[in-house]
Amino acid sequence: MKGLKIVTIGGGSSYTPELVEGFIKRYKELPIRELWLVDIPDGKEKLEIVGELARRMVEKAGVPMAIHLTLNRREALKDADFVTTQIRVGLLDARAKDERIPLKFGVIGQETNGPGGLFKALRTVPVILDICKDIEELCPDAWLINFSNPAGLNTEAVLRYSNIRKVVGLCNLPIGMRMNVAELLNINVDRVHIDFAGLNHMVFGLNVYVDGIKVTDKVIDKMTSGEQTETVKNIPDFQWEPEFIRALGFLPCPYHRYYYQTSVMLEDQVEAYKKNGTRAEVVKKLEAELFELYKDPNLDVKPPQLEKRGGAYYSDAACNLIYSIYNDKRDIQTVNVRNNGAISGIPEDSAVEVNCVITKEGPKPIAVGNLPVPVRGLVQQIKSFERTAAEAAVTGDYHKALLAMTINPLVPSDAIAKQILDEMLEAHKDYLPQFKCLESADAK
Amino acid sequence: MKGLKIVTIGGGSSYTPELVEGFIKRYKELPIRELWLVDIPDGKEKLEIVGELARRMVEKAGVPMAIHLTLNRREALKDADFVTTQIRVGLLDARAKDERIPLKFGVIGQETNGPGGLFKALRTVPVILDICKDIEELCPDAWLINFSNPAGLNTEAVLRYSNIRKVVGLCNLPIGMRMNVAELLNINVDRVHIDFAGLNHMVFGLNVYVDGIKVTDKVIDKMTSGEQTETVKNIPDFQWEPEFIRALGFLPCPYHRYYYQTSVMLEDQVEAYKKNGTRAEVVKKLEAELFELYKDPNLDVKPPQLEKRGGAYYSDAACNLIYSIYNDKRDIQTVNVRNNGAISGIPEDSAVEVNCVITKEGPKPIAVGNLPVPVRGLVQQIKSFERTAAEAAVTGDYHKALLAMTINPLVPSDAIAKQILDEMLEAHKDYLPQFKCLESADAK
Amino acid sequence: MKGLKIVTIGGGSSYTPELVEGFIKRYKELPIRELWLVDIPDGKEKLEIVGELARRMVEKAGVPMAIHLTLNRREALKDADFVTTQIRVGLLDARAKDERIPLKFGVIGQETNGPGGLFKALRTVPVILDICKDIEELCPDAWLINFSNPAGLNTEAVLRYSNIRKVVGLCNLPIGMRMNVAELLNINVDRVHIDFAGLNHMVFGLNVYVDGIKVTDKVIDKMTSGEQTETVKNIPDFQWEPEFIRALGFLPCPYHRYYYQTSVMLEDQVEAYKKNGTRAEVVKKLEAELFELYKDPNLDVKPPQLEKRGGAYYSDAACNLIYSIYNDKRDIQTVNVRNNGAISGIPEDSAVEVNCVITKEGPKPIAVGNLPVPVRGLVQQIKSFERTAAEAAVTGDYHKALLAMTINPLVPSDAIAKQILDEMLEAHKDYLPQFKCLESADAK
Amino acid sequence: MKGLKIVTIGGGSSYTPELVEGFIKRYKELPIRELWLVDIPDGKEKLEIVGELARRMVEKAGVPMAIHLTLNRREALKDADFVTTQIRVGLLDARAKDERIPLKFGVIGQETNGPGGLFKALRTVPVILDICKDIEELCPDAWLINFSNPAGLNTEAVLRYSNIRKVVGLCNLPIGMRMNVAELLNINVDRVHIDFAGLNHMVFGLNVYVDGIKVTDKVIDKMTSGEQTETVKNIPDFQWEPEFIRALGFLPCPYHRYYYQTSVMLEDQVEAYKKNGTRAEVVKKLEAELFELYKDPNLDVKPPQLEKRGGAYYSDAACNLIYSIYNDKRDIQTVNVRNNGAISGIPEDSAVEVNCVITKEGPKPIAVGNLPVPVRGLVQQIKSFERTAAEAAVTGDYHKALLAMTINPLVPSDAIAKQILDEMLEAHKDYLPQFKCLESADAK
Repeated sequence: MKGLKIVTIGGGSSYTPELVEGFIKRYKELPIRELWLVDIPDGKEKLEIVGELARRMVEKAGVPMAIHLTLNRREALKDADFVTTQIRVGLLDARAKDERIPLKFGVIGQETNGPGGLFKALRTVPVILDICKDIEELCPDAWLINFSNPAGLNTEAVLRYSNIRKVVGLCNLPIGMRMNVAELLNINVDRVHIDFAGLNHMVFGLNVYVDGIKVTDKVIDKMTSGEQTETVKNIPDFQWEPEFIRALGFLPCPYHRYYYQTSVMLEDQVEAYKKNGTRAEVVKKLEAELFELYKDPNLDVKPPQLEKRGGAYYSDAACNLIYSIYNDKRDIQTVNVRNNGAISGIPEDSAVEVNCVITKEGPKPIAVGNLPVPVRGLVQQIKSFERTAAEAAVTGDYHKALLAMTINPLVPSDAIAKQILDEMLEAHKDYLPQFKCLESADAK
Repeated sequence: MKGLKIVTIGGGSSYTPELVEGFIKRYKELPIRELWLVDIPDGKEKLEIVGELARRMVEKAGVPMAIHLTLNRREALKDADFVTTQIRVGLLDARAKDERIPLKFGVIGQETNGPGGLFKALRTVPVILDICKDIEELCPDAWLINFSNPAGLNTEAVLRYSNIRKVVGLCNLPIGMRMNVAELLNINVDRVHIDFAGLNHMVFGLNVYVDGIKVTDKVIDKMTSGEQTETVKNIPDFQWEPEFIRALGFLPCPYHRYYYQTSVMLEDQVEAYKKNGTRAEVVKKLEAELFELYKDPNLDVKPPQLEKRGGAYYSDAACNLIYSIYNDKRDIQTVNVRNNGAISGIPEDSAVEVNCVITKEGPKPIAVGNLPVPVRGLVQQIKSFERTAAEAAVTGDYHKALLAMTINPLVPSDAIAKQILDEMLEAHKDYLPQFKCLESADAK
Repeated sequence: MKGLKIVTIGGGSSYTPELVEGFIKRYKELPIRELWLVDIPDGKEKLEIVGELARRMVEKAGVPMAIHLTLNRREALKDADFVTTQIRVGLLDARAKDERIPLKFGVIGQETNGPGGLFKALRTVPVILDICKDIEELCPDAWLINFSNPAGLNTEAVLRYSNIRKVVGLCNLPIGMRMNVAELLNINVDRVHIDFAGLNHMVFGLNVYVDGIKVTDKVIDKMTSGEQTETVKNIPDFQWEPEFIRALGFLPCPYHRYYYQTSVMLEDQVEAYKKNGTRAEVVKKLEAELFELYKDPNLDVKPPQLEKRGGAYYSDAACNLIYSIYNDKRDIQTVNVRNNGAISGIPEDSAVEVNCVITKEGPKPIAVGNLPVPVRGLVQQIKSFERTAAEAAVTGDYHKALLAMTINPLVPSDAIAKQILDEMLEAHKDYLPQFKCLESADAK
Repeated sequence: MKGLKIVTIGGGSSYTPELVEGFIKRYKELPIRELWLVDIPDGKEKLEIVGELARRMVEKAGVPMAIHLTLNRREALKDADFVTTQIRVGLLDARAKDERIPLKFGVIGQETNGPGGLFKALRTVPVILDICKDIEELCPDAWLINFSNPAGLNTEAVLRYSNIRKVVGLCNLPIGMRMNVAELLNINVDRVHIDFAGLNHMVFGLNVYVDGIKVTDKVIDKMTSGEQTETVKNIPDFQWEPEFIRALGFLPCPYHRYYYQTSVMLEDQVEAYKKNGTRAEVVKKLEAELFELYKDPNLDVKPPQLEKRGGAYYSDAACNLIYSIYNDKRDIQTVNVRNNGAISGIPEDSAVEVNCVITKEGPKPIAVGNLPVPVRGLVQQIKSFERTAAEAAVTGDYHKALLAMTINPLVPSDAIAKQILDEMLEAHKDYLPQFKCLESADAK
């Protein structure tokens, strides 16, 4: 059959219009025959709102892309060419707990690499692995493009605990960092290249180039000189102790602030929580507003409000990746893949976030060699966390979960780790069927 | 010439009587012709007190070991067979600052792998490297046995920045852990073997054996069961969240509490500081009392009070190591040496603390392979810290020192790192001639 | 039950009296309750001859060690403490083919790492893996001490394709090299230590020590100076181009001559074959003579003629290893074990031959780090061969076998590899049930 | 100054017209201001012939590229942007010896990775390193593009023994292999991609793609099926034992025949030598004919006869590489660069031949991970050879040279290695000033 079949699991997400826009824009070189939006029964209403918008968008654009809406994942997956996952197990309510419970104990929740991220993983990994089993059976040649968080940890889990090898984890952070640099230098983003290496939400920009010429030092000068503060004051990425950035000599990512500015970030979060509740609660309100917009039968393009949502460029990055794979573009994109030796000291079969050449056979990582000595340790620590958390998610082993919680750099003691863990396990128990310890607790 | 020449740099230390006792005990198989105790002019008085005690001890024991006291290091080193270093650059006053200044900012000082340890390294590494240059010239075949802290970092610095390869770093922690286990099981320590692996003050006991049979689980059961608490209540090593230790499945070292119980340890230190001042100040008082004892012309053995000093078994471990090297004993001891591939993922030329076969050609590490996933990251992080700190100590580069301070897991933010660093650099400037930034500040 | 149960598979071997002698000698510290000698029906007669001799030896020595003879391997294995394997699948007739067929094509057979060794592996590995399955079921705590050749390749296969981890491969070559050095220096072998590292029959003596002092250069001088030739002229180990040994700077093993003197060795073998037939045929005659001796009812000790057999010290090495494991001796022996990082660049889970500390929990390899640059490649090439051959042996895949044959450094071309392979597969087909290609050929 | 300055050392080579043609073709996007052709006094005549032709070509094409001819290398290098080296120390006469002397001993000369290659390296490496010193001083930002053989070994030497890091080694073999596949499939070469990995003249095509789709198996089927023999019968690359290629499952390079078909290749060479003398002598005649053509004042394009010379596409590959670096093209080319972890098990700082993304900051290797088990060993063996040979070339150490010769897989024994080495050292002594052993021999 001509044209591609694409399946988006979690299709009722508020991000979907960006994805649809991305596909429409690239239709000529990325001829999608069918786009299947899949969701769970609880998401049916949103799925229909988003699905209708998608249909209006496609019609407006005049491309022959059929939009299918379904709650039947297996039906959707049959013979798919690409599967994207943008799921949120437990919805925003679960995220609110991921953030709120640690904060009670004076600990940052951090929904990707922190205690919150651990629980997001415990809920999400089993679902992703289920999807992998379906893919293996129903569309074994499909590429799985995951942008559910924690994107790195999920990729690690797929690589270690499923038979799927055609998997890519995606994040909008690298493109965001390129945009920040472009803004700082007041040039077009296409002229900016960055050598990215590390893990998801733990990635460094080791060298920055403009038109192929190294400008790392110049960028760091700009980032750390007082006069520039004006221009970029809204970009949290740049709120660093200037001497530290000079000492580093390359770019941290915004999430590094959780590790290199733990105390500051904690105060910020406590403050923000007092003012607005958790980020999850803020997002919930934003989402409700977006869905109100989406319902408008006259809306037939992606509304500009979506870009403020925070996850901007995620879906566009996914479209771009699919486009390059399908067309064997051999351009360079920054994605989460099997390390394959690209970063020394990380196992070959672990996931890393690194620049890759995107070919029809998938992304091929560019060799980085050793990470700079000062940051090597933190990257290893997060990898230890990711692997232990993935094992906990797969086995439902209480002790593995406790290990993951305790070794997380944001958690200040083994005793607090246990308290947070126990409370979170209880709070999320509906989404953690693999944890037998919870069952027996119920039995009491 | 028959018999060995041994040189102890920092010979005026209160620990020296233990060392002398250790040599006397082993004299038959370790025939020491001359023991040179070397110190700096500021330590002259203590050197003479300790030296006289050493002479009385030797005479009492009836062994023909000549005790030489000198302030001239180069004279002492000429043709030495073994050189031990137990120096404290800046004396206990410097240590007090290492502890007090970070605490002002709500940060644990930790005089080995923490901010305090960074400054101890900045002061000590250049002196150790100077000693290495003298050794290279005056006794190139000698073994350098270092037990100055930070023992791991100093070994790393010698391996990377000197030509000396016959170097061993020594710590009493592994023998202390074996003693704790023996006490817990109520058996003789000789029956206990532990597979140690990691870095100095960051070493894990991966397996525990009694008479060669693995008893790790049994030891962990004892450690984590309430009934045992009584027996071992004074051993801080065992104050862990029991479930965490069970989850780990092997033994952490007491210093791991700084990293896995950061918040608890900080509170302890603040409390202790309020009560007694810094540990340095406590030790200072203890030392004064010891030297009063040492002055007694009737004292001709190691006084029992020394064992309470905290560094017990350090000197005995040194004697034992020298004994095994000299006699090609091929027994197993836990020391800090060039990794040589023993621990996967740590550079071959970095220092690790690991079980070694002690031969006449030095310690040969037993291959460990990969460390367990959950602890791999923290070990790497401390190695990143050690390497960055060693580079800062050698180059006097402000930015390297700031990097080392910021990446240290005990330091909560880049801004606090800078504040601590700046204040400590100023406080210790007399002992940091390599830091040009301090000179130029003076010039203002 | 008190005392050990030891099972020797291939118990009818002519080497068994050495093994029995070794056990008798160590009885006091190695109390063997039962020694089970197991063989296959074809070996029944020899088993009985050797078994009777063993009984006479035990009686003469007055030790209460029961000798059991059986053709029922599973009965023997039940609750064993140690299992030794000294099997020869296809007996000496198969070995004769291993040597003769390659020689027809102008290629050295070499029964361990050469084309002959490939076929020995194809026949032996499946039997060893069967034994492993029995051990797993019947005596899961037993140690498997294998000295069937190819000892390295067999250990590789057990590590990769069975669940048995308590396995050690044993060879008499390292002890032989120590003896040669002792003879060369005219001193007692106990004073000689050598740092061995490499693979079985591909091991290097990187440093040589006498009483712990490095004497490598002195040994190499002796080996390569004309005057010494006299004393050691019968030791093929020393028939090297002197400048090559000086260039190397450390000791090759005798088997290295196959790779560094391929042309010379080939001529020797052709010559020897013309004179005496294959080595297998020579050995067959020797064996017949030995069994004649063994039959003598008055013989109640190991006859001195056995030492000339070539495999001397093999059995003694096995006794010594068992003794050190049982008694947690922590002495150093050179054995084939899981690499565990000891030799850099070889997978952690591959077998290497290296110095180990022998503990009750088995041998722990001493870290070697990188092999010297010039020999690293050849060692890797043999490891490639071993791994490919092991895979061929397990899968019965014709193409894997062809790959193993072609990449073997003794084989001069892919076409010759195929000819040798095809002829050998046919010749040995009774012992290669796993090769389906042979079945289908039969079907024609 | 606008436009690029390019320096070609060995500018009098018969290949230069291809290079000039390549530059002319790309002039629009690769604006070369000056092309300096440098040669040694012995090459003056050829330099002038080639230089005049180059000038006529440039004039004909109407591009403003100034051609400078000089014997003064340092003058030429001043401020260069790119330096290409295509030198042949000792000219074709030396190559004739590289081939003839080993053949006398029944050994293939093989002018890159064989005994001949060793001597080519001993003569060439010191000159390349001299050029590196000049570059460091006179044009430190220039890229060194080396296509002098042995290209891999020369790159290894530059990486290990000079301060130049902007170095790329170039070979026409990967493009040749792509062309062969294109011919076999009867499609345009631009549609063929191959995952190359290994060392120079020891590179494997691990996967073959057409339009991004994997077709490796199909290519292997074509290569090994009889019917195809017709089409490609002149391509020695395909003269393999079909079952071996099927067993391998990926593409060897033509040079692999030296190692996997040693005996066949030796016979070929002996035969060819009897008929035509060495390849060097054949080439000498071809070259003479080419220079006759070049002299024709009416010739103003690259004559078609040059393509038959054997080194076709070399210069075009160089132009293409320079073009992609200058324009930050980020396309994929196969070149020799610092490994940087791309191939597991090869040191990070060793040279490998691997697919790279070509950026303005140079080629960035794509991570390969582990090479397939069966070929890993041979690659390591050639790397051992390259490193030992490079060390011999730099130090002039006789023993290192003997080691390199003996460990070369083409050399059948240590004694023959010594004979070949001694005769070749004598034969080439005018070009080996670093070998002190030759001087002292002269002194006798």
